Amino acid sequence: MKSGLSFLVAARRCEIDELDQLGRTSELVGTIGRLVHALQRERGLSNVLLASQGKRFAAQRSVQIGECLRLENDVRTGFDRLQAEARRLGSGTRLFSRIAWVLPGLDALPVLRRRVGALEIGVADATAAFAKLITGLLAVVFEAADGATDPEISRLLAAMFNFMQGKEFAGQERACGAAAFAAGQDDGSRQQQWLQLIAAQERCFHVFTEFAGPVLATLWRDSQPAEELAELERLRRAAITTAPGESLDSELSTVWFDCCSLRIDAMKAIEERLASDLRALCDRKIAEARAEADANEALLDQMAGAQEASGATAFFDDIAPQPPTVKAYGHQLERSVLDMLQEQSQRLQAMSDELETVRAGLNERKLVERAKGLLMAHKRMTEEEAHKMLRQTAMNQNRRLVDVAESVLSMADFLPSGN
Amino acid sequence: MKSGLSFLVAARRCEIDELDQLGRTSELVGTIGRLVHALQRERGLSNVLLASQGKRFAAQRSVQIGECLRLENDVRTGFDRLQAEARRLGSGTRLFSRIAWVLPGLDALPVLRRRVGALEIGVADATAAFAKLITGLLAVVFEAADGATDPEISRLLAAMFNFMQGKEFAGQERACGAAAFAAGQDDGSRQQQWLQLIAAQERCFHVFTEFAGPVLATLWRDSQPAEELAELERLRRAAITTAPGESLDSELSTVWFDCCSLRIDAMKAIEERLASDLRALCDRKIAEARAEADANEALLDQMAGAQEASGATAFFDDIAPQPPTVKAYGHQLERSVLDMLQEQSQRLQAMSDELETVRAGLNERKLVERAKGLLMAHKRMTEEEAHKMLRQTAMNQNRRLVDVAESVLSMADFLPSGN
Repeated sequence: MKSGLSFLVAARRCEIDELDQLGRTSELVGTIGRLVHALQRERGLSNVLLASQGKRFAAQRSVQIGECLRLENDVRTGFDRLQAEARRLGSGTRLFSRIAWVLPGLDALPVLRRRVGALEIGVADATAAFAKLITGLLAVVFEAADGATDPEISRLLAAMFNFMQGKEFAGQERACGAAAFAAGQDDGSRQQQWLQLIAAQERCFHVFTEFAGPVLATLWRDSQPAEELAELERLRRAAITTAPGESLDSELSTVWFDCCSLRIDAMKAIEERLASDLRALCDRKIAEARAEADANEALLDQMAGAQEASGATAFFDDIAPQPPTVKAYGHQLERSVLDMLQEQSQRLQAMSDELETVRAGLNERKLVERAKGLLMAHKRMTEEEAHKMLRQTAMNQNRRLVDVAESVLSMADFLPSGN
Repeated sequence: MKSGLSFLVAARRCEIDELDQLGRTSELVGTIGRLVHALQRERGLSNVLLASQGKRFAAQRSVQIGECLRLENDVRTGFDRLQAEARRLGSGTRLFSRIAWVLPGLDALPVLRRRVGALEIGVADATAAFAKLITGLLAVVFEAADGATDPEISRLLAAMFNFMQGKEFAGQERACGAAAFAAGQDDGSRQQQWLQLIAAQERCFHVFTEFAGPVLATLWRDSQPAEELAELERLRRAAITTAPGESLDSELSTVWFDCCSLRIDAMKAIEERLASDLRALCDRKIAEARAEADANEALLDQMAGAQEASGATAFFDDIAPQPPTVKAYGHQLERSVLDMLQEQSQRLQAMSDELETVRAGLNERKLVERAKGLLMAHKRMTEEEAHKMLRQTAMNQNRRLVDVAESVLSMADFLPSGN
């Protein structure tokens, strides 16, 4: 029969396995970030190509597609590697489901690209298609953050997810604005959408700074020079405050695009820094856990002889200590094991509290997902329709998406049944 | 490169692994329940032995110790089997830490028993020692419930944990009452403790009925005939409302003990029913998941040829469907895969919501654990001292333990630092 200490060692080994797995997942998150960035650029170039009737950016787009294919290959390799390790993956079910959902999107990219190249698809649809794919990729990152069992790593992953999500809203804002300037006018519905995209970005970056810690938060602030932000805000105001029918300077389309791209490229640098911090953190955690496991195992060897000879007693010491004379050889060793167990249990408790805090930060997204699920089940909507309805309601009522989601959830009993 | 469908299959396989593991853990929970029951009986018999200066129950106690040893062997075998599977255990770290914590308690039992047999230890200390060991065993059950990834199973495990915990409070009440009647008087501090034990039982059984569903709730109600409950309440009132100094009929000690034992034995039957329901549920879930995995794999084979030939397109259908003439061979098959993915994602979402609900029911216990951890860290207390302080405060202020725990947590910033 195995001793308590051997279970302590087993617990440590599980922890190391989890950390190893988290290391690989974090690596993958970095790779996904690079693919998302490349797809965001491809989306921007595709939009201009479509808007200019194929006249502009054709060559740049070809180059960018090459870059996307290379990074897609990295991501798929990362996915496959995870699957090879499947049997040792704690939260595999959900992570793999997310991956299963996004892969058909990558499969469908060549056809989408052919249609963009042949100008067979509109700007809005092309944007929406890329956005759907990127949403699927971000969902994988979300799951990685939500499934992480180490609070420090989970915290950085949550920061990463929120940053990537914020960056994607920035990318959508770039597309939305570029379309408005190119069209030479803006309308109320687009203005509403635009405002929502700005608000959504701000929330994401706010959560990011909360989770990422002061160093990265400062880097993020410094990466956005005041004059560039001022230019961005000036262009935003120019477009969003135009009255219906009033015309926009379509020359500003390129200025807007470049201004947004400068900002998004700066975000890329922060994201790379996040990815490398994540890697370093995982490495450090793994090294620490290994060192402690080794120490435990050494003690286990030392115990092996001593305990057998004496019989254990220390467990009940705090209730009914034995007289010192009776205390067996090895009692001191036994106490030190109990102390170690106590320490481990406190550490796990602290980790578990911390994890709950981090996960609460991911809750906002979960609320929206749950509200969508509810609408899909009760109103027989597709996911797209449900999301659109939530967003539309948020626009109409000028409320945050998450608040609308909360209202939907609280009214669950009043929704019609789907049958 | 692997397809989305193959990840769907991988997700299912992870789910099956998790369910297999849950099946084994649930089996172990049943075994722990039997050991706890036997230890509760041994505690009762030991108390009478000690209180009667070794005159009563010596033979019964020997028999009971034999039963305990047999069941302890089953539990240890179950622990070892879990460890052999360690590498495939998602939530291994915490579960193993709990096991590591309780094993030294089992190791220390022989010495405790020798001291009881030699009448070297008081009734209160013996009760406390057994209670500490049982608390450790219940913590393993708690972790199993908290780590479960299937909401239905988690729900039954949570019902089981609360039932076992309620039963343990009933066992402690039996000991507390037996000591009071045997002493021929009760005092204010014991009366307070007694009231707390009654309230704690009621809360546990309330949570149990919430989670166990109507069938088990009815069984539970029916297992407690009105006349037995009336007798229990009569005895409780007789002891708890005596004024200080007023004497109790010490003959009632046996009546009280038998009345409580009858009730606790009835609980045992419910617990066995819970354990067998749990086993049946795990078996059903595993069979269902296997059947679905087989169906997925069959579809995967069917897809293998079709998709390669055609190129995927269906992912963007809802945004920008292609003209029907362009739709490739295999498009229908592809759609059905996407539908399956959608279904899976909705199912996982629903599971995840349900899990959160179940875990919230376990939260009460977590609050107490966290408050203890805080006191241990900030006031340099041992776990026993922290628990005692919380319980004492609850008694003094006539509040529920969980409310005191919440107050402690909310005052965290005002606690002195431990350094």
